[in-house]
Amino acid sequence: MASWFSRRPKRVSAPKLGSRAESVTADRAELEEFTPPLRQLLGRAAYVQLALFENLGRTVAAAPTTAGKASLAECAELSLGKHRALVDELEKLGDDPAAAMEPYRAGLDEFQRITQGGDWFESVLTCYLTAGFLDDFYARLASGLDEPDASRLTALFTAPSGEEQLAGLLAEAMDDNPRLASRLALWGRRLLGDTMLAAKDSLQHRRAGDDAQIEPVFTELIAAHTRRMDALGLTA
Amino acid sequence: MASWFSRRPKRVSAPKLGSRAESVTADRAELEEFTPPLRQLLGRAAYVQLALFENLGRTVAAAPTTAGKASLAECAELSLGKHRALVDELEKLGDDPAAAMEPYRAGLDEFQRITQGGDWFESVLTCYLTAGFLDDFYARLASGLDEPDASRLTALFTAPSGEEQLAGLLAEAMDDNPRLASRLALWGRRLLGDTMLAAKDSLQHRRAGDDAQIEPVFTELIAAHTRRMDALGLTA
Repeated sequence: MASWFSRRPKRVSAPKLGSRAESVTADRAELEEFTPPLRQLLGRAAYVQLALFENLGRTVAAAPTTAGKASLAECAELSLGKHRALVDELEKLGDDPAAAMEPYRAGLDEFQRITQGGDWFESVLTCYLTAGFLDDFYARLASGLDEPDASRLTALFTAPSGEEQLAGLLAEAMDDNPRLASRLALWGRRLLGDTMLAAKDSLQHRRAGDDAQIEPVFTELIAAHTRRMDALGLTA
Repeated sequence: MASWFSRRPKRVSAPKLGSRAESVTADRAELEEFTPPLRQLLGRAAYVQLALFENLGRTVAAAPTTAGKASLAECAELSLGKHRALVDELEKLGDDPAAAMEPYRAGLDEFQRITQGGDWFESVLTCYLTAGFLDDFYARLASGLDEPDASRLTALFTAPSGEEQLAGLLAEAMDDNPRLASRLALWGRRLLGDTMLAAKDSLQHRRAGDDAQIEPVFTELIAAHTRRMDALGLTA
């Protein structure tokens, strides 16, 4: 049925994001230079994990198979575990976690709204790409904190968040329906832009002129995003 | 504003469910007599916890306050933890958890659909009442298994599932808006009927005539439901 679809190219190209970033090599600022104070980082990251969890929760509910549902439930639990670990960190500092998250709510709810995707496949890609990018990002930011916070929180962010399970579900979906790939490639590229904007909001500007320095600090995170897209056979 | 609303009665009454059950005292059958085989109980209960989690996930996403969101995320994690513990039990038996849950999916998805509630308040009440009832129910069923399964699984089902947090959120919402109480009372009564139907599907009929015996086994579970309603000042 509709075999002419198979003649469509499976890989599609579009204008690349981040080419400016890749051209800057000398005098490169590091992400760690923009690390915000501990409490701010924890409050924002705790809400980020909630937003990532909400996307996962929706994919569990909409999963077309029981196996997919069970696999996504594992990812949701990992994400909730990271959220709770960040809440525990805030409580150890004597802070009220809800109050610490509150300032970041409106911005991150909007990020969540625009990245939730038009259907289950796009939502699963969102979970895969945005959690990957933001966990990487916060791990880097955390490494700019004083020790022992830096090591403890870097480990927290780099802990598994279900990347393999999510990639597996997406690969399976594209095997069943090869036309999905071009749509998901477009969606993945759009997600990169939106996720970078959400990440930039987390950066602490320390001096005038920092703006120009920010683009290059994303180089490695963009490369990691590209690798995640490549792993699915999608052109970033 | 609209102060005449406060003259409305805060408690409303409606025909009671379960009055037949309460009239039977002699020769009472116990729920444990209807315990299904271990694998069936685990597969169904694992999917039940997923369905309860999906409701919780929706309430996290729709929570009107950051504190509410954080509190519901705790409940969602407890529910996912129970789901995972049941999946681990299935894996220890050498079973594929997704295949073990599959037979119960259609029925429980329908249960979830009809109990999800029309807004956030109803959904939170659903989480509070259906998780309470079904955790009680499966704890009783599990006590009909052979040891050591009986003790281990009874403990699993009776572990906290966030009942206090959910009751707290509902009490707060009704303080802010007393008119909510009558709507939630109606919703709570409807949930009892739907939840009992879902629970009945789990029972193993061992002989002809079992049907007549089933109603009374719910007596104590209905009483616990009434106590949960009472704790919120709602007439069951």
